[in-house]
Amino acid sequence: MSALSLCPIEFRYGSDEMRKIFKRENILARMIEVEVTLVKSLEECGLIPRGYSVSLESCVHSIKLEEVDSYEKSLGHDVMALVIAIADACGESARFVHYGATSNDIIDTAWALLIRDALRVVESKLIELINLLTKLSEEYSDTLMVGRTHAQHALPITLGFKFANYLYEFTRSLERLMSVESRIVRGKMAGAVGTMAGWGDKGFCVESSFMRELNLGSHVITTQVSPRDGVAELVNALAILASQAERLGIEVRELMRPEIMELAEGVEGRVGSSTMPHKENPVLSEKLAGLARLMRSLTITALEDIPLWHERDLSNSSAERFLIPHSFLVIDEVLNTLIKILENLRIYPERMMNNLKLSRGTNMSEALVLRLTDKGMLRHEAYKLVRELVSKAINENKDFLTVVSEDPRILKYLTKEEINEALNYRKYLGMHKALIERTIKYANEVLKQHSLLSQK
Amino acid sequence: MSALSLCPIEFRYGSDEMRKIFKRENILARMIEVEVTLVKSLEECGLIPRGYSVSLESCVHSIKLEEVDSYEKSLGHDVMALVIAIADACGESARFVHYGATSNDIIDTAWALLIRDALRVVESKLIELINLLTKLSEEYSDTLMVGRTHAQHALPITLGFKFANYLYEFTRSLERLMSVESRIVRGKMAGAVGTMAGWGDKGFCVESSFMRELNLGSHVITTQVSPRDGVAELVNALAILASQAERLGIEVRELMRPEIMELAEGVEGRVGSSTMPHKENPVLSEKLAGLARLMRSLTITALEDIPLWHERDLSNSSAERFLIPHSFLVIDEVLNTLIKILENLRIYPERMMNNLKLSRGTNMSEALVLRLTDKGMLRHEAYKLVRELVSKAINENKDFLTVVSEDPRILKYLTKEEINEALNYRKYLGMHKALIERTIKYANEVLKQHSLLSQK
Amino acid sequence: MSALSLCPIEFRYGSDEMRKIFKRENILARMIEVEVTLVKSLEECGLIPRGYSVSLESCVHSIKLEEVDSYEKSLGHDVMALVIAIADACGESARFVHYGATSNDIIDTAWALLIRDALRVVESKLIELINLLTKLSEEYSDTLMVGRTHAQHALPITLGFKFANYLYEFTRSLERLMSVESRIVRGKMAGAVGTMAGWGDKGFCVESSFMRELNLGSHVITTQVSPRDGVAELVNALAILASQAERLGIEVRELMRPEIMELAEGVEGRVGSSTMPHKENPVLSEKLAGLARLMRSLTITALEDIPLWHERDLSNSSAERFLIPHSFLVIDEVLNTLIKILENLRIYPERMMNNLKLSRGTNMSEALVLRLTDKGMLRHEAYKLVRELVSKAINENKDFLTVVSEDPRILKYLTKEEINEALNYRKYLGMHKALIERTIKYANEVLKQHSLLSQK
Amino acid sequence: MSALSLCPIEFRYGSDEMRKIFKRENILARMIEVEVTLVKSLEECGLIPRGYSVSLESCVHSIKLEEVDSYEKSLGHDVMALVIAIADACGESARFVHYGATSNDIIDTAWALLIRDALRVVESKLIELINLLTKLSEEYSDTLMVGRTHAQHALPITLGFKFANYLYEFTRSLERLMSVESRIVRGKMAGAVGTMAGWGDKGFCVESSFMRELNLGSHVITTQVSPRDGVAELVNALAILASQAERLGIEVRELMRPEIMELAEGVEGRVGSSTMPHKENPVLSEKLAGLARLMRSLTITALEDIPLWHERDLSNSSAERFLIPHSFLVIDEVLNTLIKILENLRIYPERMMNNLKLSRGTNMSEALVLRLTDKGMLRHEAYKLVRELVSKAINENKDFLTVVSEDPRILKYLTKEEINEALNYRKYLGMHKALIERTIKYANEVLKQHSLLSQK
Repeated sequence: MSALSLCPIEFRYGSDEMRKIFKRENILARMIEVEVTLVKSLEECGLIPRGYSVSLESCVHSIKLEEVDSYEKSLGHDVMALVIAIADACGESARFVHYGATSNDIIDTAWALLIRDALRVVESKLIELINLLTKLSEEYSDTLMVGRTHAQHALPITLGFKFANYLYEFTRSLERLMSVESRIVRGKMAGAVGTMAGWGDKGFCVESSFMRELNLGSHVITTQVSPRDGVAELVNALAILASQAERLGIEVRELMRPEIMELAEGVEGRVGSSTMPHKENPVLSEKLAGLARLMRSLTITALEDIPLWHERDLSNSSAERFLIPHSFLVIDEVLNTLIKILENLRIYPERMMNNLKLSRGTNMSEALVLRLTDKGMLRHEAYKLVRELVSKAINENKDFLTVVSEDPRILKYLTKEEINEALNYRKYLGMHKALIERTIKYANEVLKQHSLLSQK
Repeated sequence: MSALSLCPIEFRYGSDEMRKIFKRENILARMIEVEVTLVKSLEECGLIPRGYSVSLESCVHSIKLEEVDSYEKSLGHDVMALVIAIADACGESARFVHYGATSNDIIDTAWALLIRDALRVVESKLIELINLLTKLSEEYSDTLMVGRTHAQHALPITLGFKFANYLYEFTRSLERLMSVESRIVRGKMAGAVGTMAGWGDKGFCVESSFMRELNLGSHVITTQVSPRDGVAELVNALAILASQAERLGIEVRELMRPEIMELAEGVEGRVGSSTMPHKENPVLSEKLAGLARLMRSLTITALEDIPLWHERDLSNSSAERFLIPHSFLVIDEVLNTLIKILENLRIYPERMMNNLKLSRGTNMSEALVLRLTDKGMLRHEAYKLVRELVSKAINENKDFLTVVSEDPRILKYLTKEEINEALNYRKYLGMHKALIERTIKYANEVLKQHSLLSQK
Repeated sequence: MSALSLCPIEFRYGSDEMRKIFKRENILARMIEVEVTLVKSLEECGLIPRGYSVSLESCVHSIKLEEVDSYEKSLGHDVMALVIAIADACGESARFVHYGATSNDIIDTAWALLIRDALRVVESKLIELINLLTKLSEEYSDTLMVGRTHAQHALPITLGFKFANYLYEFTRSLERLMSVESRIVRGKMAGAVGTMAGWGDKGFCVESSFMRELNLGSHVITTQVSPRDGVAELVNALAILASQAERLGIEVRELMRPEIMELAEGVEGRVGSSTMPHKENPVLSEKLAGLARLMRSLTITALEDIPLWHERDLSNSSAERFLIPHSFLVIDEVLNTLIKILENLRIYPERMMNNLKLSRGTNMSEALVLRLTDKGMLRHEAYKLVRELVSKAINENKDFLTVVSEDPRILKYLTKEEINEALNYRKYLGMHKALIERTIKYANEVLKQHSLLSQK
Repeated sequence: MSALSLCPIEFRYGSDEMRKIFKRENILARMIEVEVTLVKSLEECGLIPRGYSVSLESCVHSIKLEEVDSYEKSLGHDVMALVIAIADACGESARFVHYGATSNDIIDTAWALLIRDALRVVESKLIELINLLTKLSEEYSDTLMVGRTHAQHALPITLGFKFANYLYEFTRSLERLMSVESRIVRGKMAGAVGTMAGWGDKGFCVESSFMRELNLGSHVITTQVSPRDGVAELVNALAILASQAERLGIEVRELMRPEIMELAEGVEGRVGSSTMPHKENPVLSEKLAGLARLMRSLTITALEDIPLWHERDLSNSSAERFLIPHSFLVIDEVLNTLIKILENLRIYPERMMNNLKLSRGTNMSEALVLRLTDKGMLRHEAYKLVRELVSKAINENKDFLTVVSEDPRILKYLTKEEINEALNYRKYLGMHKALIERTIKYANEVLKQHSLLSQK
């Protein structure tokens, strides 16, 4: 089959677990489930006689996607095609199928169910990632390395501190997804223009019975369709997540440069290049960047779907057929890839230490400025003096410690011991450990909230 | 001045209230406030002697933006320029200014304060909009009009019901902004790589004193900068809001067509065309569409800013200099415009009724299908029969009621009275009133939450 | 198969003709063709003995995509997998396969060939569209209707004139695609970093033989890959085309409103709504809007692919696996749909005339202003006077002609005959016919250029 | 003034040369020029008496932007405001101002003139950039360095070869801009719906006289406005250019890392960090990335402007007020910055050589594979063997040359001399010099075309 495919989500990207959710046969199954649930609710509210839903349940399983497709071909309408296919399969039992409903009662509710399933997968992988980063933050909490800003050497940090920042960012994403879920995973059962006209004064009864059965919250009011701001918010949240993953991927790609080589993707038997046998390439991390670009783009499609005309126009439909499955399969691949990268990450603490020392102490200049300020210099004059000494150390190719210790202007304020102390990497890590702990605690709280929410 | 301007947010779009927040002099003032607050915190934590912050407060007011600009020109660094300008103005009092801080401690915290101010403006206008829509939903809760899907006539609704859907959508936006605010309005005071190294073991003390003073929450951990997912989430939330506004603008533009003319922008003395004296154009509503396009685009810039390298690179800086002020000025113009449109909206209930009758009853076909189903027909066969009668009515140019009432197949199931009842517009509005009420109640709850949150 | 698919380009959107181009088996076939062509060129330049390419050609056909996939699974490298599969299938004949080449010599050249094929399909459909619009412009060159600006009635135009504007816009797209093609359809055969190092001083010989064989132009210089600006320009050109199609789709959707009903999609047996039997919806035209949104988004992905690191990084790869097939299948669906819409378009000239008269002549106000100016009034005072009379006509619900003919201020300047003449719709169409002709002529010239270019 | 500004294009980004073009007073001046030119054309075609345009020219200079603004405030229409301001200033001379024209005849033609001016500036800077890169390509044509793919070491290249690739890419941008210009720099003078109705049968005369006077090509046909595909194509071309600049910026940022340090931004007296005196940061190159993000985003706004309703709606107007000036000021800043970077670039050939040797010869593995294949091994078996030796060299920490020269399997095929030759960096640069020359030749041809075109 794959030989005839075109789209990478069919065969290349995303897990089977996620693929199963958005396969056409599953989408159909969800739509049928929604139709049957409606009939149940009609019975419960006394709008139709009891018994129809039970007999429906036993006959709908025989419906084939091909039949529905073939009806759609002639009718040009997918839900109408389904309704007729149900009628074919179930005869008199189908009498009240779709009673009072409009197509998007079925479609939007099916999307809500599918998105809920898909979010479960995304969230469980995100939690796995959060747990991995928690472990890495703890394990490497004291592994010294240089912090880099503008890709230049700044102050020392630790690898665990670096990981903790990613831990924080991904935890924010989990929090955000929980907030988004409350606005997007909502059913819609309100008829052709949202007034529930088909069920007379039983509209609220039908709706609440229907939502209870599917364990869904309901929109407060709708037109023919659910408001599309929810999709836009969802896709954007996934694009943020993908961009955060890209950021971690860039970290790996950069730190795996042969000149740096502090981190590296585990490559196992992977071939680096078809022509250069020596190559080992961070291809998983690079993939994250490409997929993040796609995710970012899709936010535009989703935003443009919001201004539907009047009680709705159809323009969101073709767009969402791409938007929803692609977003989830792509984010799924992103998360799987990132987990794989972290699980196989090669870490070189010695290289980190070597690189940290590359600037021969000049990157500790801030510490010196502060100590001088403590002892009475104006901060910005201390800054100027230290800057001069940094230049000297570089130009004369000497250790910063040596240059500083020989400068009489410095020695007026600081003893050699104090200078030694000021330029000690390990003594200039600030609150790194407490910050890591605070981040892990925050992550744990969010995980707990998530777990509470999921039990509902 | 305006004659020399280029950008519409300088002179054309947005209110002075919002403009004031993002004027360069105010940004500078906020940055100075942050620097002074840091000195206060240093004193409070015993890192420096008491007294500096008080004397600082009295001298910083003399700093001119021009001086800072001139230092920046030679130094190529904006915050460093500010620090030196403070030193110039305050001499010895400036000794501990910027002690242990990095530029983005100042910049990101200033952004947080500015964004908080700007969100207050946005939210207060959004609340005004919500209140307007609440009033309109109630006032026109029974004003019959046709619901339109695919720009075709669907079932009847009421104008109040239409407004209530917008009310729901904008209320969701308010809810979303409240959620976003919790992740974006956070201060950052943690030094060059986020470890708080400059303050030894007093980092948490400095941070908490600083945040308390500014009444800000703090990020849990940071690199040199706050994580950029917050900006992306914010800009997207504003883009969603702009897209919802565009949707309401399209409603007005469409319903103001001369062939429809159910709603119209109040135009006062406005000229429609420079060459066609008869023109009245919905130019305010059209403006919403153009501005929404800009807002949507900006989400991409914001998303691309997330994957900064290592402990940060500078690429977000130039982008955000546009992103943040433009987003807020544009959304401000959007909200002001929408409020103006609604306050001056001309409403033509008679035209609504005329248009509703345009289809001579055929748009009540669903109601007939349901009644036939109730009386024993299979739903999809009823659908087929009714469809035939619709065609007949159209082809023979007759009222649908007439055609239906004469059809023996219908009369087998329904009396003429029942037919009359089924085709009565007013009897087919479902739960419209209860839905409007439910929406207003939901809006009120969100407003209450907002009010509680704002008091914090 | 379709039951297991997820992506709409697999089964729903795009023609089989286009699908065939981007099916995995065809992509593989193109890559094999490129590999074999390289061996031919190596022979021709005397780098390897003659005979290998001939024997290769006979054995490569047995290669199955599954084998390549299975190698890729273990190697993590798609082109390397192909090279080994060729070795498996061809043994000693494969000895020089991939000699001196890098993966992207194969991939980028295969993309160039596939894109050329796909552009042929796009262009041929675009030409069909241009021909259809030419016919419609001519056929309806005198069919009066109102021109609409701001969705309000402006001056009269003709339907043919309207069509001619679309004709112009689509012809610009064809011109643009021809320009883009010259930058994107270029082969790349230059080795791992673009220096052609593997072939010593025979690099240009290999390249030119290779390109001649494939009838491709070559890039002037490359890194490991072709520059990615070409893809960005291509996707943007297709997004422009899709947006133009959306514009025509909006035209149909709006003019098909029951209150207007000047144009309508031919619906054949199509069902409009699953619950409202009376509905006829412009679903094809609506689909264009959704697909245009997707196309617009993809320009962002393509632009972000440009800044590859150094001699390349891999981030474009995953993105382009989506970008290229999706762009072409989506634009294919857009063009097919638009052609179908135009071929089945229902046109109601009577309704056009009725709607034109809706404003009872007030929309001829410009003509009156000009005639008054001719006769000596200042243009803007004429404008003011006419505006007053327009208001009068509307407020007193009279024909504009009546109001104008009775106004003494007008009669000072114009006779009743002149007024009659000025307010005659047919007399105020300007150069509409000559403009239509000029547009058709321009289209024909572009078609001729295209035909010349295609013969190369 | 700057203290009250909000938008960085007012005071921070872009040159005064470009700023001058889009200042409001200049836009107004262009609009007045267009209005006067129309009057000239009306005279020339005998539609109005001679003399008006000459007297107009002498009075329009007194018009103040403030007056126009104040009219716009009361009228809500910018061009109408201008027309009245002209009437105020010129009295009877203004009698035929705007005769037969619509606002967008003025606006779109003014945009065309402004865009032409702005493109001149962009192109002249792009040419400066091309000349700089030509010089650098030549000067460093033999400066050895490692080529990097996936940020890993690939084969050797030269710095001149690297520059030549950028030269190629920017030359493609110049070519693209020339193509875009032919579609966007076109005047529009065709009245309210594009039919030229106001000028009877003199429409083509007015148009051609008008265009000749302004030295502009004309659109073939229009609605009320020029088609918006031109703006979208323009903005995209500028976004491509910005993305190419970002790519060169990334090159500098990466090669300036202290671990690599092959290239560096000249920093002069610039301060790197407000707290770390040792920092030298590639802030100019980083700025390119941020600005490129903004440019990419704007393509979406421009694309969304294409599907205007019917003969036009106003939604493009507010969007373009941002789009056009911002695009040009931002690209201007991008080009200025890039030129500055290249002019001050610090280049460290020794570091290049050191880094090239970092892999101790293993990055020459491809050369060895090819020589083995030449001598009779199957290419992919040679690949496997060489890969094994690469691993051995790395694991045993030996020079690749040593490991290879000792391997009996290699020595069966190659003498030590042949091995030495194969692993010599300088001998494996392929056609690098000829490719550089070919690129320069291509650039020169495009420059020549550009110069011919500009003379028109």
